[in-house]
Amino acid sequence: MKLASLKHGRDGQLVVVSRDLTRAVRVPQIAATLQQAIEDWDTLAPRLEAVYAELNAGRADEAFDLDMSALHSPLPRSYHWADGSAYLNHVQLVRQARGAEMPETFWTDPLMYQGGGDSFLAPTEDIEAVSEEHGIDLEGEIAVITDDVPMAVTPEQAAGHIKLIMLVNDVSLRGLIPGELAKGFGFFQAKPASSFSPIAVTPDELGDAWRDGRVHRPLTVHLNGETFGEPEAGPDMIFNFPQLVAHAARTRRLEAGAIIGSGTVSNPGKDGGPGKPIAEGGVGYSCLAEVRMVEKILHGEMKTPFLRFGDRVRIEMFDREGNSLFGAIDQKVVPYSAA
Amino acid sequence: MKLASLKHGRDGQLVVVSRDLTRAVRVPQIAATLQQAIEDWDTLAPRLEAVYAELNAGRADEAFDLDMSALHSPLPRSYHWADGSAYLNHVQLVRQARGAEMPETFWTDPLMYQGGGDSFLAPTEDIEAVSEEHGIDLEGEIAVITDDVPMAVTPEQAAGHIKLIMLVNDVSLRGLIPGELAKGFGFFQAKPASSFSPIAVTPDELGDAWRDGRVHRPLTVHLNGETFGEPEAGPDMIFNFPQLVAHAARTRRLEAGAIIGSGTVSNPGKDGGPGKPIAEGGVGYSCLAEVRMVEKILHGEMKTPFLRFGDRVRIEMFDREGNSLFGAIDQKVVPYSAA
Repeated sequence: MKLASLKHGRDGQLVVVSRDLTRAVRVPQIAATLQQAIEDWDTLAPRLEAVYAELNAGRADEAFDLDMSALHSPLPRSYHWADGSAYLNHVQLVRQARGAEMPETFWTDPLMYQGGGDSFLAPTEDIEAVSEEHGIDLEGEIAVITDDVPMAVTPEQAAGHIKLIMLVNDVSLRGLIPGELAKGFGFFQAKPASSFSPIAVTPDELGDAWRDGRVHRPLTVHLNGETFGEPEAGPDMIFNFPQLVAHAARTRRLEAGAIIGSGTVSNPGKDGGPGKPIAEGGVGYSCLAEVRMVEKILHGEMKTPFLRFGDRVRIEMFDREGNSLFGAIDQKVVPYSAA
Repeated sequence: MKLASLKHGRDGQLVVVSRDLTRAVRVPQIAATLQQAIEDWDTLAPRLEAVYAELNAGRADEAFDLDMSALHSPLPRSYHWADGSAYLNHVQLVRQARGAEMPETFWTDPLMYQGGGDSFLAPTEDIEAVSEEHGIDLEGEIAVITDDVPMAVTPEQAAGHIKLIMLVNDVSLRGLIPGELAKGFGFFQAKPASSFSPIAVTPDELGDAWRDGRVHRPLTVHLNGETFGEPEAGPDMIFNFPQLVAHAARTRRLEAGAIIGSGTVSNPGKDGGPGKPIAEGGVGYSCLAEVRMVEKILHGEMKTPFLRFGDRVRIEMFDREGNSLFGAIDQKVVPYSAA
């Protein structure tokens, strides 16, 4: 099943979306918002699935053509947004570039930060930034939405609480990160509002690409119309989503609508060294920090700049037949202007 | 005006509470929940104020006797919960005990971490913890609730967005903090669900105790029935609430219902050294970590244990006449048991 939220009020209006992403239908008789649906998922999901079947069969009378620009992020806001950093190749690269070892415990204890869950950006909304000097970067990731997760669940138990999957652009302000991390309290101003793919899908929609608690498809990232990365999301995700959800719930329960992210999708090179750019036969990257680190490691200096005002970022994922699974995050970076 | 939320569904049911905290009245004709009220504050607050005037005058027909145990935290969940650490005496003490200098920038750039906003505890709900070995601690604090705050506001602008004030118990698991902070991503599992005072009040309720963006009253903390701390919340708060709100909004807008905390209320001793316990003529503390640090600094070892199962914590604040302003956070620590 595929779900989305039309821009409407603070929480959007829930719609069921056809498998091919061309048609949608409102479902106010079932749930007004996705938040409402996830809070009562066991009861409402079967009813939404029934609508989905009718829609795909061309039998949903009220269906309309889907305009992606009318969609907000599936959850326009969430009470719990936490982002892991499960692709340790990304972590290792960042550390290697500054000559720091990666602690052994990173292989057994996931990295995760708490993000701000209010005011997510829409998938095609401009990324407003105060200054280019903040080092504006994209981070292409995958995220899951859970229902109510009890405290201290095991990864095996956590797996059953994963109800929906989507993509994320976890926008980061690289220039603010070193100062913030040095203070010891983690990210805050360095992580402005994230945006999500227009469509969230149930795990069964991914077929055998959803296995071992991971999404086994490449994440496609375009920068200003050129392919920047197609890293494989599956093999190098050291902690899978059930492990990340269990980590988040170790000392507190998670409430329905919690979003848990994977961290920046990243692959090492085939030789085990830094991954190469697309132009050099590699799979590229899903953030600029990484290509800059690779440049520094291989050539001694970072050449690729961070995002500038006017730059455009596009993040999506396709099935084996080339069909978009989640729709595209497609955003332009613009200077912030007070309303 | 004083507001509270009866336990009811996930977001509670909004009630207006009398100034003396004895009576309350439901206001479904105005707003079902506090979240709904704060989202449309400019329109709804005057209507709530009118009910408050009637209630205090004994003219609210539907009023009922208020049972504090029927109340949830004013916002049972929030899309944005961020906690500052504005009492630098607390920060300095913690660092001094481990021989670390406090960077000069801490006096100009606030510390703040992002907390999980889902599933807050009720003010009189048990604090469930997986293990005493996690070093369970209270942190007595003050927090404000904002309406919609635009990105990049100045502290002067932020001041006008502070709509309600309440108390917090920012429960902390001290044993998990060193390991988490060493990972560089800040607090996560070390900060389980917080609880808030049963009543949230508009700033005007505090009279001249609300000035300079600070609350100038002592915070009263009891442990197992004995007074543990009465630190002054005003003078040693290095960054005031407007500054903390502006810090939180530097690179993203905050959505109505955002909660921004002060950090653990803490005073230095009169001689500028570590503050003394109540029994030694000091004002005591609002967290156990602090008394333990003072013990280590003065006597070489920490003696006071962290919270044990069965321990009871009570946090409240009184006006000059001894009336409770926000009602009490009153919680027992218990072992977690899976439902």
